[in-house]
Amino acid sequence: MYNFKNDYSEGAHPRILNKLIETNLVQQLGYGEDEYAHEAKAILKTRLNHPDAIIHFVSGGTQTNLLVISFLLRVHEAVISAKTGHIAANETGAIEATGHKVITAETTDGKLRPEDIAKVLAEYALAPHVVKPRIVYISNSTEIGTIYTLEELKALFLYCQSHQLLLYLDGARLGHALTAENNDLTLAALSQFTDIFYIGGTKNGALLGEAIIFNRPELAVDFEYAIKQKGAMLAKGRILSIQFLELFKDDLYFDLARRANTLAMSIASAVQAKGYTFLTQPTTNQLFPILPKKVIERLSLNYQFYIWKNIDSDYAAIRLITSWATDEEKVSAFIRDLQEA
Amino acid sequence: MYNFKNDYSEGAHPRILNKLIETNLVQQLGYGEDEYAHEAKAILKTRLNHPDAIIHFVSGGTQTNLLVISFLLRVHEAVISAKTGHIAANETGAIEATGHKVITAETTDGKLRPEDIAKVLAEYALAPHVVKPRIVYISNSTEIGTIYTLEELKALFLYCQSHQLLLYLDGARLGHALTAENNDLTLAALSQFTDIFYIGGTKNGALLGEAIIFNRPELAVDFEYAIKQKGAMLAKGRILSIQFLELFKDDLYFDLARRANTLAMSIASAVQAKGYTFLTQPTTNQLFPILPKKVIERLSLNYQFYIWKNIDSDYAAIRLITSWATDEEKVSAFIRDLQEA
Amino acid sequence: MYNFKNDYSEGAHPRILNKLIETNLVQQLGYGEDEYAHEAKAILKTRLNHPDAIIHFVSGGTQTNLLVISFLLRVHEAVISAKTGHIAANETGAIEATGHKVITAETTDGKLRPEDIAKVLAEYALAPHVVKPRIVYISNSTEIGTIYTLEELKALFLYCQSHQLLLYLDGARLGHALTAENNDLTLAALSQFTDIFYIGGTKNGALLGEAIIFNRPELAVDFEYAIKQKGAMLAKGRILSIQFLELFKDDLYFDLARRANTLAMSIASAVQAKGYTFLTQPTTNQLFPILPKKVIERLSLNYQFYIWKNIDSDYAAIRLITSWATDEEKVSAFIRDLQEA
Amino acid sequence: MYNFKNDYSEGAHPRILNKLIETNLVQQLGYGEDEYAHEAKAILKTRLNHPDAIIHFVSGGTQTNLLVISFLLRVHEAVISAKTGHIAANETGAIEATGHKVITAETTDGKLRPEDIAKVLAEYALAPHVVKPRIVYISNSTEIGTIYTLEELKALFLYCQSHQLLLYLDGARLGHALTAENNDLTLAALSQFTDIFYIGGTKNGALLGEAIIFNRPELAVDFEYAIKQKGAMLAKGRILSIQFLELFKDDLYFDLARRANTLAMSIASAVQAKGYTFLTQPTTNQLFPILPKKVIERLSLNYQFYIWKNIDSDYAAIRLITSWATDEEKVSAFIRDLQEA
Repeated sequence: MYNFKNDYSEGAHPRILNKLIETNLVQQLGYGEDEYAHEAKAILKTRLNHPDAIIHFVSGGTQTNLLVISFLLRVHEAVISAKTGHIAANETGAIEATGHKVITAETTDGKLRPEDIAKVLAEYALAPHVVKPRIVYISNSTEIGTIYTLEELKALFLYCQSHQLLLYLDGARLGHALTAENNDLTLAALSQFTDIFYIGGTKNGALLGEAIIFNRPELAVDFEYAIKQKGAMLAKGRILSIQFLELFKDDLYFDLARRANTLAMSIASAVQAKGYTFLTQPTTNQLFPILPKKVIERLSLNYQFYIWKNIDSDYAAIRLITSWATDEEKVSAFIRDLQEA
Repeated sequence: MYNFKNDYSEGAHPRILNKLIETNLVQQLGYGEDEYAHEAKAILKTRLNHPDAIIHFVSGGTQTNLLVISFLLRVHEAVISAKTGHIAANETGAIEATGHKVITAETTDGKLRPEDIAKVLAEYALAPHVVKPRIVYISNSTEIGTIYTLEELKALFLYCQSHQLLLYLDGARLGHALTAENNDLTLAALSQFTDIFYIGGTKNGALLGEAIIFNRPELAVDFEYAIKQKGAMLAKGRILSIQFLELFKDDLYFDLARRANTLAMSIASAVQAKGYTFLTQPTTNQLFPILPKKVIERLSLNYQFYIWKNIDSDYAAIRLITSWATDEEKVSAFIRDLQEA
Repeated sequence: MYNFKNDYSEGAHPRILNKLIETNLVQQLGYGEDEYAHEAKAILKTRLNHPDAIIHFVSGGTQTNLLVISFLLRVHEAVISAKTGHIAANETGAIEATGHKVITAETTDGKLRPEDIAKVLAEYALAPHVVKPRIVYISNSTEIGTIYTLEELKALFLYCQSHQLLLYLDGARLGHALTAENNDLTLAALSQFTDIFYIGGTKNGALLGEAIIFNRPELAVDFEYAIKQKGAMLAKGRILSIQFLELFKDDLYFDLARRANTLAMSIASAVQAKGYTFLTQPTTNQLFPILPKKVIERLSLNYQFYIWKNIDSDYAAIRLITSWATDEEKVSAFIRDLQEA
Repeated sequence: MYNFKNDYSEGAHPRILNKLIETNLVQQLGYGEDEYAHEAKAILKTRLNHPDAIIHFVSGGTQTNLLVISFLLRVHEAVISAKTGHIAANETGAIEATGHKVITAETTDGKLRPEDIAKVLAEYALAPHVVKPRIVYISNSTEIGTIYTLEELKALFLYCQSHQLLLYLDGARLGHALTAENNDLTLAALSQFTDIFYIGGTKNGALLGEAIIFNRPELAVDFEYAIKQKGAMLAKGRILSIQFLELFKDDLYFDLARRANTLAMSIASAVQAKGYTFLTQPTTNQLFPILPKKVIERLSLNYQFYIWKNIDSDYAAIRLITSWATDEEKVSAFIRDLQEA
């Protein structure tokens, strides 16, 4: 059985493990004050083309989301998310547990546009009997594999700015978005057209770790307190910074993501060649092909994946995910099995 | 400069890193469902002599404390801690941030005894105008290096049981407690005489990781939800379980802690030989010698450590910590420098 | 201008004010321990036909909802509500502010049925990545004026019981529901077929006050702590209990509600006579007639009410509310103006 | 039995009840938008000599404290209180339930001074491992009957201002403080030398109600949302505003408080005449005489009061409270009984 369920089935890219070994006995300050953190942040700021950005490293995506959102909201404020957004759909009420409502908007492709936000603002106009929307949360790539274009992000950011809303981008799979074929965004553009975003490491080759970027330094003041308070400050913060140092000292981060995308696209081509369609347009390392249930059954004998959504009595959509670690031979085998099924 | 500030200045014990490399490309389920987790839990249950214990692995101590305490308390309930307890003194209001008061008790040695709890219960009798104490939080070894005896733990546990209180033990430095010279506690005894406790990995050779032990399985029902909600569920849970597997498959965990204690005791002997005293009795890998300020100044030229407490115009207490990774030659050098100072 | 905007535009029924004056200088214990509280609870228990019910009086509806729900839920649990439910639509994230998600279900009439709950349970099956539904929140009468039948309530309660869900009924306008023409529920039936509910005083003649009924006494243990903690325990609790004593010592509570309903029905008849329709079936003291905008404009010259929903370019729905205090002559005048408009 | 336990044993001053009756059927907007609110606020602003102050009325003291403090603090910030402060001692963890630590300072007289705050700031210097103190909470009169002088308040406020701390004054018994014999504070002075304070109605003649004063309008922006969210926004807000209108349209508020103080002082004189001492200096309507236990026992036959603190085997301190409603004859009788005891 080979696992296409997700992009965190293996450990870390070997270069990361080697770097951990290489630095292992060098004494460092704890709690994020290690020298590797300073180095990694310097490199990232260059990539962001934003020397004043404030950067923090934490362990995971849900942790990042609850940290950032609860830190920036006042008691009566809320966050807007697509209904498919991770904070709305898959984080066990993490945001609500910090005291804030997640307002959801229906979308077809997992992306929020100014008109979605406008609709929410209209529905939440009866102050003070409703919460006050304050943050717009988006994901890139989204939870259903789609990506934002530069134009889309810019339009959304401008709308947010003109409505006193903060734009926060969840980059759990940012690498896959930025290396997609039709992508025209860069780290520097993200730094320019969001207020806060994070660069996901866990799903792109790190053992664990996400880099939170505050593009407006004034929003980050005192954020260290929150990191500690929510249990997100690792004593050995070096574990996180060393990984980001390795991922970004050259193009490893992008190379790993591109590889995952390429493998996904080869599967997507095979799906299309067989005449099957997709729930959402194949773009990054998450595919949602709609297959005959008999085919799904056959593939299930050798591969693990999620049955994502029932379509009708004969068809269902499945989710296939590739990663930096996906075995090319298994991809070829999967394609063969699909062709034969 | 050599760093005696803490026991998390280096990475991980080499055996742990090797194990991470060895298992790196084996596909595993995410979110704590990996095979290593099952293996590690089985080994720990044997050590605990408690086949029904429920075990979960998370990243750090503050995270563990806030997870366990907020999961077990109802809205009106509170936790009792020594004033020096980590949740009271060093976690940025992490418990209060989940909605609960931390009631503190003054102690001389960082340990809670039935009479301390009795005093709190008397002070918190005016229901419903005060919170209802429900959990007693203790640390072993304590934040000031002392340890509990079997008799002390038993007495406290019996008191808790007869007063509908849960006893929760923070084992961030449990290894050091259990390998101290005058210790008579075991993992099995802890499993018998506490309701919940955790075994700290971060401060004893792991990259990160703590093992939470619910001795009463009924208390652990649904705890996975809380782990996810608080951002503590790692996608690659294997990182935590592999480390505990390695630490407990033989006596590595205890060997590392014993080594730290031994080095600390050699420093302690040198301190005593010079006629200096201690803030608390040297027992584990945390020492609090009271030294002339001039001596402290001299030592500061070559070593990093915390000035813990001013005693008078001439003397102050410092904190020295040794670990599994402490360089023996640096310990010898420190002793020499102390003798000459 | 006469106000049909709501049922809390005036003070209290004169009998209540008289009772406050009559008892004014009798010394009483504070914080809900007054003799009137004991008396009022005894009367209510008789009405509920439930001598073991536990009853508490608090000030308002949002306060009641957040108190009950936050007290009964554990950190990872959530409440299900119709999208029109007050906790979802009109309480400024009060439930989320206590740490819990409100899961909403779309309905056409503001009422939840077992199939709505079943759908939510199916959507929230992926434990532990989603919250755990635990309370079903309904309102009677609903926020759009409809009511539950005995059969509907029973079916929902049985469904809840078989799925480990608590059923909680918001009775802000319970009097109006129980005195509606087609109603077949009683206080005793509510006590039998819900786990917790509250009897609203504020919108039916009291200055302020709601009576919370725990039908299962074990759920109410320690609830006083929560009342105090959330700032809902009045020093002069007598203010609340005296009012409920007066409302329920005979049938005042029901008489006042019936009067409001009767006046609403006379307006409803006039609306129907003119050939207009309603957004929801006129049943209690809240009416949602769909009127030509020109008619609305004309009526707005003499009456205050909410424009509830735009229907199309010519029509809109308005909300009219009558109460115990509504002036009959103003109702007649309104009907006349409507007929002439 | 006559009750000296507290100042909320009776209803409201007759003038207040009369005003409620007089205005009873006048239709008003709900949720604090009634005309009486505008009138009452205008009067109060004149008294405060602060036309820009922002004023809100809510039901009780604990509610006020949790509303103000949770609204003004960010997640990592904390409030400092005397250990005897109501938020620390008597509110069932209401502040912690909103996510914030209450840092306590030991005092002998219930009052905080700059040096107390300085000590706390020194103890909470190890950012980000500790919370960040942000609000200083004081009470006037304090929970043990003492009062602040103008000089003391000014010194504390200046200290707060120079340390980025907000000064918040709990005025549950503010009337009694401002009418004490040795008082030199005024409402205008409070408005000048605090950031926020509240004027307590419940303990000085109102049925219920406290007036929250934001002296810095920018701090009050959006506060209505919080009032609604915490369940503190009464549908019939008129109940609160009408009472404050009546209490402040002339000097009723002060007259009632002065009367309570005068009666307390007559008891205090009798206590002193018998040679007994006090736990704290008799100043306002709360007395803490230290009496022989035999005397206490004798008095307990006819009067209710709290045994406050055991002194030794022969003596204990009791708490006696007088109010606007205290029966003068009962005071005389108490004094007689004391003299004879």
